[in-house]
Amino acid sequence: MDIAFQGEIGAYSEEAVRALFPAADVVPKASFGDVFEAVEAGNVAYGVVPIENSLFGSVHINYDLLRDHDLVIVGELKLRIRHNLMALPGVTLADIQRVYSHPQGLGQCQTFLKTQLGHAEAIATYDTAGSAKMVAEEQSRDVAAIASQQAAKEYGLNILAAGIESNHQNYTRFLILAPDATPLPHLDAAPSKTSVAYAMRTNVPGALFKSLAVFALRDIDLYKIESRPLVGSPGEYLFYLDLAGSIEDTPVQRALDHLQEIAAYLKVLGSYPQGRTVE
Amino acid sequence: MDIAFQGEIGAYSEEAVRALFPAADVVPKASFGDVFEAVEAGNVAYGVVPIENSLFGSVHINYDLLRDHDLVIVGELKLRIRHNLMALPGVTLADIQRVYSHPQGLGQCQTFLKTQLGHAEAIATYDTAGSAKMVAEEQSRDVAAIASQQAAKEYGLNILAAGIESNHQNYTRFLILAPDATPLPHLDAAPSKTSVAYAMRTNVPGALFKSLAVFALRDIDLYKIESRPLVGSPGEYLFYLDLAGSIEDTPVQRALDHLQEIAAYLKVLGSYPQGRTVE
Repeated sequence: MDIAFQGEIGAYSEEAVRALFPAADVVPKASFGDVFEAVEAGNVAYGVVPIENSLFGSVHINYDLLRDHDLVIVGELKLRIRHNLMALPGVTLADIQRVYSHPQGLGQCQTFLKTQLGHAEAIATYDTAGSAKMVAEEQSRDVAAIASQQAAKEYGLNILAAGIESNHQNYTRFLILAPDATPLPHLDAAPSKTSVAYAMRTNVPGALFKSLAVFALRDIDLYKIESRPLVGSPGEYLFYLDLAGSIEDTPVQRALDHLQEIAAYLKVLGSYPQGRTVE
Repeated sequence: MDIAFQGEIGAYSEEAVRALFPAADVVPKASFGDVFEAVEAGNVAYGVVPIENSLFGSVHINYDLLRDHDLVIVGELKLRIRHNLMALPGVTLADIQRVYSHPQGLGQCQTFLKTQLGHAEAIATYDTAGSAKMVAEEQSRDVAAIASQQAAKEYGLNILAAGIESNHQNYTRFLILAPDATPLPHLDAAPSKTSVAYAMRTNVPGALFKSLAVFALRDIDLYKIESRPLVGSPGEYLFYLDLAGSIEDTPVQRALDHLQEIAAYLKVLGSYPQGRTVE
């Protein structure tokens, strides 16, 4: 089964694909738009894209693509973004003179680099997985890379230290995109959640409050709410909401019908089992 | 007056500092944490940090730093992130064989590169401003960089094409951080907004709805709402809210007192004039 993701082989997105679909054939794509198009065209079975990170926020461009494409969210996964120091087999910490990684990778592992590799030079590259590839290609015994576990596997490198990031609370939530709402049989039978995007009519005082009332009055729990100003339309907002329950449940159906009555725009992005967290 | 920002000279954050404080001395810092510490220690007058981008979401790490540090937001600015193609003076589009930029810069200008520079090779670097610096240092007449206007000025490059990004709706909102709430006299006398972060007690059904009621019942408009799951505490959320009005206004004061009654945590991050947008 072919699964598309954005990035290079060894990227964190590939790690998410492998956690979700252990037997899949991964299909790297240059952009998020290319992932959506591959799923829509039927060239791959599913696509996997990041939607929010615990430190860096929501990936709005993927919300935009969800609104513009006729795809459905059928699953999710939370992946801990764990940076690892890797080098050629046999190389030890004391051998390392240079460390390659994306500036964000280097920045997030600053404390480790200072205390454990004070003698080494940190060299910024354009990609974490790419830095692992460079170490493998150079075949030098005095360089290391900071990248994902998947990158170490891919490029035959040995992990010298795992989880070396200073802030361990770095998680990315990934979505599985499908051409239709057929459930994925291998996902846990976890309770459902439903994701929607909507906009309220302008000049309605307390519009957000009213939109949330349709859920609160039916005791439907909310997992995520986010407003996003519509660029070029001051005072207009798009809202992203994740709520407890499936579109198949009568209270959720009624709440969404109610929201439709008062909203200027509403799109249900998918109902799917709550995803597990991969530490 | 010294103003700190995160990044290299020529970064988009420096452009924001110069739009906010035309006569300032800019002080580049390696990390956002360094910016906060410089303001807190009194080493600079103010700090300027990005808080959200229209395509890439909120910068949660700066919200974390706002919670952890005793600083106040005293102003804001929305800056259009405009990518420009730049080269040594006299170089024309036809001369260019290689284009340097951060992968995000290259990706966002893909259409321009394909249609106008199909003959050139795109080379990923670790930083947009850094790619401009490379062009200036190499002194080659067949290379160009994609970076900010500020970078072109800084490194003596000529802008061959401005605003070459495919999606023009790329805006970043920056905050001005100060050690205390003294207003900045030179900011427009725009209507005030107030930013708060809060958490509700767990196991309160409809907690978010109740927290918004304190504003809706007083006809206070909301500009931004965002929930953020607290990593390690499933079911617990932190909320970020921007609302109309100043902490000096009685209805806002009463609404926040009311929120304090029902919240587990509340921090007012600042009241400040709504910022202008720099296109």
